[in-house]
Amino acid sequence: MKRFKTTRTVNLADCDVAQIVHYPKFYDWFDRNTEMMFRAAGFAWHRMLSEGSEDGDFKGMPLVDTSARFLFPCRFGDEVRVESWIGEWTGRTVVVLHEVYNRDRLAVEGREVRVWAVRDNSREAGIRAAPIPEEVIARFKD
Amino acid sequence: MKRFKTTRTVNLADCDVAQIVHYPKFYDWFDRNTEMMFRAAGFAWHRMLSEGSEDGDFKGMPLVDTSARFLFPCRFGDEVRVESWIGEWTGRTVVVLHEVYNRDRLAVEGREVRVWAVRDNSREAGIRAAPIPEEVIARFKD
Amino acid sequence: MKRFKTTRTVNLADCDVAQIVHYPKFYDWFDRNTEMMFRAAGFAWHRMLSEGSEDGDFKGMPLVDTSARFLFPCRFGDEVRVESWIGEWTGRTVVVLHEVYNRDRLAVEGREVRVWAVRDNSREAGIRAAPIPEEVIARFKD
Amino acid sequence: MKRFKTTRTVNLADCDVAQIVHYPKFYDWFDRNTEMMFRAAGFAWHRMLSEGSEDGDFKGMPLVDTSARFLFPCRFGDEVRVESWIGEWTGRTVVVLHEVYNRDRLAVEGREVRVWAVRDNSREAGIRAAPIPEEVIARFKD
Repeated sequence: MKRFKTTRTVNLADCDVAQIVHYPKFYDWFDRNTEMMFRAAGFAWHRMLSEGSEDGDFKGMPLVDTSARFLFPCRFGDEVRVESWIGEWTGRTVVVLHEVYNRDRLAVEGREVRVWAVRDNSREAGIRAAPIPEEVIARFKD
Repeated sequence: MKRFKTTRTVNLADCDVAQIVHYPKFYDWFDRNTEMMFRAAGFAWHRMLSEGSEDGDFKGMPLVDTSARFLFPCRFGDEVRVESWIGEWTGRTVVVLHEVYNRDRLAVEGREVRVWAVRDNSREAGIRAAPIPEEVIARFKD
Repeated sequence: MKRFKTTRTVNLADCDVAQIVHYPKFYDWFDRNTEMMFRAAGFAWHRMLSEGSEDGDFKGMPLVDTSARFLFPCRFGDEVRVESWIGEWTGRTVVVLHEVYNRDRLAVEGREVRVWAVRDNSREAGIRAAPIPEEVIARFKD
Repeated sequence: MKRFKTTRTVNLADCDVAQIVHYPKFYDWFDRNTEMMFRAAGFAWHRMLSEGSEDGDFKGMPLVDTSARFLFPCRFGDEVRVESWIGEWTGRTVVVLHEVYNRDRLAVEGREVRVWAVRDNSREAGIRAAPIPEEVIARFKD
């Protein structure tokens, strides 16, 4: 599978007092990249959320597990590249992998495990995990 | 003066429960645009900050006044454009103006008043406001 | 009217490379204080939002105008106090005023103008501004 | 060791369009709790950072590894408690563990691995990992 890539400049707005990216921002970047990767594949969350109000309709891809390893600093002013791809489809969940490169040096490795959530009005939470549709998986197979 | 423009998709990471941009994010966007506009003009804050440690050296452009008017909503999934330019040079301060367009509709008007701060080791705060250098002003005159 | 007050320590997570609060954070603090002030007055947004799905039901208090003046720095490690109160009720809008004190020194003055929004399914946006209910205004008259 | 505990209300400013905490915020909460736990133990980062400019002086506790598991949603308006404690001291690193409780239900488990960084002017990065001082470890042994 082709990686989904975005680039960004490390702004003052990303940095802490040590002039490096404040680490929760990396997860913010992962979240944005996952959303944009699904959008690029034809599954725009904002559109899918607005369409359905019946049981079984898409309600988002909430997280069950996340992690990140920090290998090399991303400093104020650096140009970085966030690469994202699907690690594995496992029924009701998907593993999304991320790598942040500072120029050509691997700076951060990230991992998100997300559930495919659909509306379920019989539950208090209003949602349940559902099998990820085949057409979603197929679109990432290129 | 030419406007400095960036585009962005309104991500889930920008939105509140009403599916519109959480308003402090607009100021985050203004701050990023101001930094990138100065960088594009040859005055990269991260480089200027790292260079000097003597009295009079650049120490940043802290805010003294900001405001924003919200005219039209920016919603989850919208494509927006942030335009920024210098409103006025007033000695030790500069007025930076911003407009956010949602497609071609003016959505937000913003304004930042920033000080040109330089190192001053004789003061407790370690900085003082200084006249904005002529070569900075000149570079924005195109 | 009594002011609504919260205190916080300026954390690393609030600061930029100059070891002062990154200015959009102040607006984040204003937003939190406004929400908590209404909650303390008996008008918890999360509850009011979940209750209604008919025309006229509460849909939030979006911003139309905001501003802040920065008078004194709030630095990493400082203990600050955010004070908030109603400046004016003007029919469909309310002016919320904020002051941030760094110990006893006024550091930031803020202002939010918010609309009282209710559901209106006849509109594309799904909401319209409505007169602020008398019982809301009455609760802040103490 | 006694756990360090803070409480917070889940504000609109913490939530995404699904009215649950936007997940990078949990890492923001972990970072704040770790800072406040060290501060409560007598090791206030902002003070330690401002004191030293010689080789070997404290320069922060950057992250090398983080993770979180999300077990139960934290929703808009919920009252939550973040508990933090030292998992392990391992020479130059420390493992900080976190649990977020939504009322009495375990909602999130978090883990941060942090380095004890000191100034090293002989290195390009300006810092190196150093053994965590005995007096630091001793203060957490109560």
